[in-house]
Amino acid sequence: MNSFTILKMSTHSNFGTFQKLIMLPGPTNVPIEVTEAMISPSIGHRTSDFSSLMDKVVRKGNILFECDENIVILTASGTAAVEASITNILRKGDKAIVTVCGEFGSRVSEQISGVGASPIQLIADYGDYPSLSDLERALETNPDTKAVYIVTNETSSGAMCHWLKEAGDLTSKHGAFLIADAVSNWGADKMPLRDYNIDFIATCSQKSIAAPPGLALISISTKYKDQIFKDTQKLHFLNLPRYINFFDKKSQTPFTPALPLYFALDKAFDLMLDEGMDNRYLRHGYCGKAFYDAFEAMGLKLFGVQEVRSNTVISVAYPDGIKDKDFRSSLETQYGVVVAGGFGDYVGKLFRVGSLGMVNQYHVLTTISAIGNNLRRLGFNANLDSALDVAMKNLTNIRSKL
Amino acid sequence: MNSFTILKMSTHSNFGTFQKLIMLPGPTNVPIEVTEAMISPSIGHRTSDFSSLMDKVVRKGNILFECDENIVILTASGTAAVEASITNILRKGDKAIVTVCGEFGSRVSEQISGVGASPIQLIADYGDYPSLSDLERALETNPDTKAVYIVTNETSSGAMCHWLKEAGDLTSKHGAFLIADAVSNWGADKMPLRDYNIDFIATCSQKSIAAPPGLALISISTKYKDQIFKDTQKLHFLNLPRYINFFDKKSQTPFTPALPLYFALDKAFDLMLDEGMDNRYLRHGYCGKAFYDAFEAMGLKLFGVQEVRSNTVISVAYPDGIKDKDFRSSLETQYGVVVAGGFGDYVGKLFRVGSLGMVNQYHVLTTISAIGNNLRRLGFNANLDSALDVAMKNLTNIRSKL
Repeated sequence: MNSFTILKMSTHSNFGTFQKLIMLPGPTNVPIEVTEAMISPSIGHRTSDFSSLMDKVVRKGNILFECDENIVILTASGTAAVEASITNILRKGDKAIVTVCGEFGSRVSEQISGVGASPIQLIADYGDYPSLSDLERALETNPDTKAVYIVTNETSSGAMCHWLKEAGDLTSKHGAFLIADAVSNWGADKMPLRDYNIDFIATCSQKSIAAPPGLALISISTKYKDQIFKDTQKLHFLNLPRYINFFDKKSQTPFTPALPLYFALDKAFDLMLDEGMDNRYLRHGYCGKAFYDAFEAMGLKLFGVQEVRSNTVISVAYPDGIKDKDFRSSLETQYGVVVAGGFGDYVGKLFRVGSLGMVNQYHVLTTISAIGNNLRRLGFNANLDSALDVAMKNLTNIRSKL
Repeated sequence: MNSFTILKMSTHSNFGTFQKLIMLPGPTNVPIEVTEAMISPSIGHRTSDFSSLMDKVVRKGNILFECDENIVILTASGTAAVEASITNILRKGDKAIVTVCGEFGSRVSEQISGVGASPIQLIADYGDYPSLSDLERALETNPDTKAVYIVTNETSSGAMCHWLKEAGDLTSKHGAFLIADAVSNWGADKMPLRDYNIDFIATCSQKSIAAPPGLALISISTKYKDQIFKDTQKLHFLNLPRYINFFDKKSQTPFTPALPLYFALDKAFDLMLDEGMDNRYLRHGYCGKAFYDAFEAMGLKLFGVQEVRSNTVISVAYPDGIKDKDFRSSLETQYGVVVAGGFGDYVGKLFRVGSLGMVNQYHVLTTISAIGNNLRRLGFNANLDSALDVAMKNLTNIRSKL
């Protein structure tokens, strides 16, 4: 592993008239070799050509997820992977604990209700995150809980779960299933399925994996697998035993897969294996810290509670007088940098920078420069020198650690 | 419309070492300009860039489907579109009539049972198709039928529904919904949603549309739309009102779409609009007939009942002594032509040629030559001259009609 590979200025970005720097919490910038992998000849999904491809992809995925069972890939969004985690095990009347501190936790809670199960919500303010002791209390009060749903990174606010390993141990001790809705931070933050006692990880292709959107990835424990074969859901599309059986028999998918995206995923997995997961976690951590430190140095107020800050979604409060629409549209049209706004009640109050996927020094410095410059242009006296200086210090730090 | 455009030898096929001629009932050969459309810069799915793309795609789709409501696009397989047609309107205890004469009819029937509704099966032998009078009788016996599910083209056997318009009129008169599982022949056989009184058409990107797999397309009637807003299903991923509301408000999708496939679909829709749907139906009809006539002239026995033959999936019985595995693997490795085998009990008894998408004279003649040659090599005395002659007559016929 050459530690400079991931830090060098990207020669891939095609940073011209049409290409923008996508600093969103997904989709992310896709390396050109991953994009180009989609231009593969048509193949049939019931042929040995596809079986070979699928075997390769699953084998690589199993290494990355650090799991015992084969990963399952759906042609669908991350929401479908989360929904599959629910429809495959929860039944009418079941109890499931769920972390709710933003849009995505609320969605999981609704999906749990959708199958007639009862969500027990661990609620925290927007920008904060529930605590491990909240979970402990909920499990003690509800010893018949069937599953615990942790939204590992609340994309809508930029708060993350810092006690996932402890949650795995605790939930396993209570005999419940631990489900990680890790859609926006698997691959960026450490969560080995087996070692952390996680039973289900849901993520998708366009977040830290840095492939194009369209595939949802699922990794399950043997305990979860046994349960869904014992009591199998009746519909087809999200029916995981069908996917597992089909792969075991033919190394194929039960329903037609988005073939070009499989070629892309295969290439994206190669890049992950080449970098190494530990390096990847470090890189995400340092890039995230570079952003936080730079925004503070610039004179901006970070949004949310410091202790629960996400490594991948950086939320920043707008200074007085800066309007969301003006700021983000000029950032995109003048500087070619795309960042996200707030959600729900927080629209107009904050912006969110996605720092994930192949994020590197080039992306971080370009984004900070563009944001600082744009804020100055709009009348906020951003201390850009100081921001770039502190970002650069963090980024130099990565080189010495990798 | 230049009638020669669609018949000229494809310069797109890249017919070299790696590219095979895919004569499957989907995925089909994808024109290179559609494939290359996927190489577009990363865009965010919550940006005006995506809204513009989505608006274009939906507007074009509405013309092609000949419908009043906006089409809905899911990042998923055709199975998901069919499942959405079920989960969005059928409830526990509802009755639904369904045509069952092969694998895909059986799947729909299982999916209907999956939501606790009762499927009333119109059964025909494999290779045959239920009749309109079967439907009439079933509707009379079950006046409380909520929906009629027609698998318009039973891909597993190569039998199609030749009374779809009549079914629409009849079902509408009975106040039920007509659902067309048209996964494998929308775009190849005429089925204007509004004129045929169809309430739901399910199809997907990799069949007659000739785009890569990964998107499911849904067109609904106003009657169906009213029903699903009156009684909305609770889960998220296949929840059509969520898709409709999101599009109405923002010209976006509620969950992350497979962006590269949207660029490809946009281009594929352009090619369909350029050709014109009536020309497209004619082309599929003539290419299908060229295959049927050529296989008979070759001395082969066609599979299935003549009156219900599909225009897009040509099923041929193997002559004595020809083994499926030998035939299809040498066809692929020696001639570079990929065709499908039989399903279930019919594995080894027949092969199926997919004649859809951008299928043209070049594909038809190449496939017939390869199959005839390969059969001769394997010991069957195929009359190849006569087969090519009769195919060519049919194909010349297209030119004069378009």
